[in-house]
Amino acid sequence: MTDDERAIRQLVNMWMAATKAGDLAAVLDLMTDDVLFMTSGREPFGKEEFRATSEGMAGTDVDGRAMVQEVQVAGEWAWIRNHIDLTVTPATDPPIHRSGYTLTILRKGADGRWRLFRDANLVS
Amino acid sequence: MTDDERAIRQLVNMWMAATKAGDLAAVLDLMTDDVLFMTSGREPFGKEEFRATSEGMAGTDVDGRAMVQEVQVAGEWAWIRNHIDLTVTPATDPPIHRSGYTLTILRKGADGRWRLFRDANLVS
Repeated sequence: MTDDERAIRQLVNMWMAATKAGDLAAVLDLMTDDVLFMTSGREPFGKEEFRATSEGMAGTDVDGRAMVQEVQVAGEWAWIRNHIDLTVTPATDPPIHRSGYTLTILRKGADGRWRLFRDANLVS
Repeated sequence: MTDDERAIRQLVNMWMAATKAGDLAAVLDLMTDDVLFMTSGREPFGKEEFRATSEGMAGTDVDGRAMVQEVQVAGEWAWIRNHIDLTVTPATDPPIHRSGYTLTILRKGADGRWRLFRDANLVS
């Protein structure tokens, strides 16, 4: 495994750990400022909308597991395919289980760190 | 625009034209043998399942338009983000309109041709 691939797998683990811990600042730090998230039935959205949506979910417990299916590095770009299992537990409602795949483009910054750049999320 | 970017945009146009013409062999020729398509609520599927699904849709008219939003080439890899508008008209039912985004990984073959390798389809 190359250093880049190791760093990318670590990024996935950090994302899930920070999400589970409710540490939004840490999650935001793992994406570029011009990131775009794509989900079904909605226009792509960026970092500020991600932040607002996450802040609106305060009190919701999110527990997830990401299983990396593929990693491919090409210079300063990389793509990964993950299978995600999520259990979302709102403050007052029963838990909801979701699973599915994501296809994600990562970009290596001038600081040598990999961050999410484009994310297509098919978790349903 | 680089030659690679021009070839990739041409691939997108050929895909839509071949789909509209019902030329399945031409569509299959635009993907690698180990391609994977990801859609919501279903396991990723490959070239043979794509072929079988398409053959099962004989008599259905598909008219589509792909608007390339982004193209990024990195060596033998590239990724593109498209917005797709589709009108699917079954033989005996009224037309269905669908639209949404795709995020696609392309791979350049030893023959110098770009082909679809991974595709996340959020068209709904």
